[in-house]
Amino acid sequence: MSRDQFRSDGHAAIDWVADYLGRVGELPVLAQVTPGEIRSRLPEHAPESPEPFADVLRDLDEVLLPGVTHWQHPRYFAYFATSSSEPAILAELLSAALNTVAILWRTSPASTELEAVVLAWMADLLGLPTGWHGHIEDTASTSTFAAIIAAREATGREEIVCSEQTHSSVDKAARMLGMRLRKVPVDAEFRMRTDALGDLSDAAVIVATVGTTAVTAVDPVGEIATACEASGAWLHVDAAYAGAAMVCPEFRWAFDGVERADSVVVNAHKWMLTPLDCSLLWTRRPDDFRRAFSLIPEYLRTPDAEDALSLSEYGPALGRRFRSLKLWAVLRCYGRSGLQRHIRSGVELAERFEGWVAEADGWELCAPRHFSVVCFRLEGEDGPNRRLLERVNASGEIFISHCVLNRRYVLRLAIGNLWTTEDDVRRAWDLLVREAAQL
Amino acid sequence: MSRDQFRSDGHAAIDWVADYLGRVGELPVLAQVTPGEIRSRLPEHAPESPEPFADVLRDLDEVLLPGVTHWQHPRYFAYFATSSSEPAILAELLSAALNTVAILWRTSPASTELEAVVLAWMADLLGLPTGWHGHIEDTASTSTFAAIIAAREATGREEIVCSEQTHSSVDKAARMLGMRLRKVPVDAEFRMRTDALGDLSDAAVIVATVGTTAVTAVDPVGEIATACEASGAWLHVDAAYAGAAMVCPEFRWAFDGVERADSVVVNAHKWMLTPLDCSLLWTRRPDDFRRAFSLIPEYLRTPDAEDALSLSEYGPALGRRFRSLKLWAVLRCYGRSGLQRHIRSGVELAERFEGWVAEADGWELCAPRHFSVVCFRLEGEDGPNRRLLERVNASGEIFISHCVLNRRYVLRLAIGNLWTTEDDVRRAWDLLVREAAQL
Repeated sequence: MSRDQFRSDGHAAIDWVADYLGRVGELPVLAQVTPGEIRSRLPEHAPESPEPFADVLRDLDEVLLPGVTHWQHPRYFAYFATSSSEPAILAELLSAALNTVAILWRTSPASTELEAVVLAWMADLLGLPTGWHGHIEDTASTSTFAAIIAAREATGREEIVCSEQTHSSVDKAARMLGMRLRKVPVDAEFRMRTDALGDLSDAAVIVATVGTTAVTAVDPVGEIATACEASGAWLHVDAAYAGAAMVCPEFRWAFDGVERADSVVVNAHKWMLTPLDCSLLWTRRPDDFRRAFSLIPEYLRTPDAEDALSLSEYGPALGRRFRSLKLWAVLRCYGRSGLQRHIRSGVELAERFEGWVAEADGWELCAPRHFSVVCFRLEGEDGPNRRLLERVNASGEIFISHCVLNRRYVLRLAIGNLWTTEDDVRRAWDLLVREAAQL
Repeated sequence: MSRDQFRSDGHAAIDWVADYLGRVGELPVLAQVTPGEIRSRLPEHAPESPEPFADVLRDLDEVLLPGVTHWQHPRYFAYFATSSSEPAILAELLSAALNTVAILWRTSPASTELEAVVLAWMADLLGLPTGWHGHIEDTASTSTFAAIIAAREATGREEIVCSEQTHSSVDKAARMLGMRLRKVPVDAEFRMRTDALGDLSDAAVIVATVGTTAVTAVDPVGEIATACEASGAWLHVDAAYAGAAMVCPEFRWAFDGVERADSVVVNAHKWMLTPLDCSLLWTRRPDDFRRAFSLIPEYLRTPDAEDALSLSEYGPALGRRFRSLKLWAVLRCYGRSGLQRHIRSGVELAERFEGWVAEADGWELCAPRHFSVVCFRLEGEDGPNRRLLERVNASGEIFISHCVLNRRYVLRLAIGNLWTTEDDVRRAWDLLVREAAQL
């Protein structure tokens, strides 16, 4: 590709993105295709000769787009709603163009040091203690996995303790590592019951959650910290979703006790306007991470290794992308005030939806709403709720997901997209009511 | 950011990239900064209010760029040289704009199915058997880690066997998983000695390498496969670097026996024009991966789960980026012929450099050159070689790395960048000769 060709293809790609972001709200949120349908439209072999990039862009529209579930859609309300904001999109372009690989400090000083800086900025924005060591992993699954390995290294113990509502990544980590997993029951508001923690003398780590996956419950972190301190267990806090809300002081109650944690994960790629992957992991015990992960083979020994930070020594990966660039772009282009506005808007919209459910006959709320996720259902049996979810998702107008609470099938509406307005939330509610009436 | 603002910032970002790729060859390859220097130039706190994206772009130039080691530089010859090609850069932009998260098939049918398609295309291009299951992990460290977990699941055994020249990611995996690691000695050409494999009755997996990190040695995969078949051990082939060369039939000798492997990793982000991260992992035993990794919690159960492929069931990660898009763009815009041209050019340039070393007095070659990496040194002591490496890297003209072979310090020149010409390689050699004369 000549440089001029790149410039013109690049401008076309930017225009494609601008148009996409402009029209995504008119596309079906959930891809309306059946398994295998996209695959069947693609050729069986790679081309023999080069094709123009314009053909790739055309096929993205014609072949792939019908198979895309639009996470950027303002009526994407499933799991945790996210957004890839414009500055972050452009920063990913720059990061791909630089293509630095931070296996060591010297192979990418800028990305390594910017990562330390933006993690310090974020700690400050979220009210975490100053001076903690921070770095970026791909997803919260990896961050939690790394923390569990550091905890095992630090304690020499083999048991992981979490609640029934803890994210499945902890089950997966226990399985991968061959560690024992013990699940503590939850109270009526789905918080870990500290009176049921049991014997912790073999516990390597307790995973506490601030904003659980199903209902965004907040475990009593302070009480769990006390139990960890008494037993010598590591405290890992999973705030993958709700951590972002801590940029607003009015939600900081949920971080009470987090300053006593050994490690904390917050995903910038959930509610912090940054595309996947950007999971932020802080620890006050960096030496334990280093002991668990540092392994510098001869070919990576350099004269500057003594003074310089190499973040590959703090987690499973060796090759590391320039992920701090997109978070830096988000923090610069939104500022503290812009991030607060985004979080508050999501919470207010969720509050409004919650109000409509509360006032409607035949509907019930199923858990306290702390942030931007509402758990609700049609009163009565599970069957109609299941059918309702399928119908509204099949419409393409909205995409919502579900959870199971106390053995009942519960609908979940999660707000977090940058472009969601009250009209979008209203449209979701009207659709739910209309489809429920036709069940 | 308004849509018009995005369009104009985006065009500016594209122009920045075009200019960067045009001038990268004039910048110092290895960042000429000391540890902490970049950090000290950045503010202590995130801004309170939004700043324009133009300021981010300005600070990228003024503050960060001096701290960037330029992996895109045509005289980057360290470790394994890579390139992020133009179509792949634009595809990363598109992928960040779509921001799909393939936790399940339905959350991103297009990325899931395109991933299956491009892995099948690649298997075909590299001469791997048809019908193998392929998916993308972030790095070869993760691919190998996942394969080892699948092997442990399949065999119920706890020992990993590899050679002294195997990549350090296997040491790291063994440490993370608490598995035993046994290293087999190598022969005079740094290949695993199959006569020294020893007792394999406890071996979960043997990791064979096609293109080792230090000298790109090719382990005798066929003989190792025979040993695996006899002992019930899993065979994992690490072809992270050299796998890409298999697109040319003349290098396929190195893949002899790979068709008998249980799993194989090839990094598209090494020699295949794709930016980090894009590690391709194939297996002929997908059910063993699924048994090791599949864990579908209630909130992720969907009606289409039965028929649909969810790639999060085949590896450690739950959230998955749309990484197939960039590989698709590369395969479309280069075609088989373009990829072959790129590989052959790298090998030819390495051959030429090897010839200059062979003819020069006072220099020696240290290992057979199979692909695009040359291992060489000044005859005599290690000291001058160490000083030579530091001097040429400090010049900013080239960046090379080292390895240790038979306890001797050896210099390594790796070719793989898309824009490297014979002039660049010649300039590296001239600089080495000039600096050596001044030691």
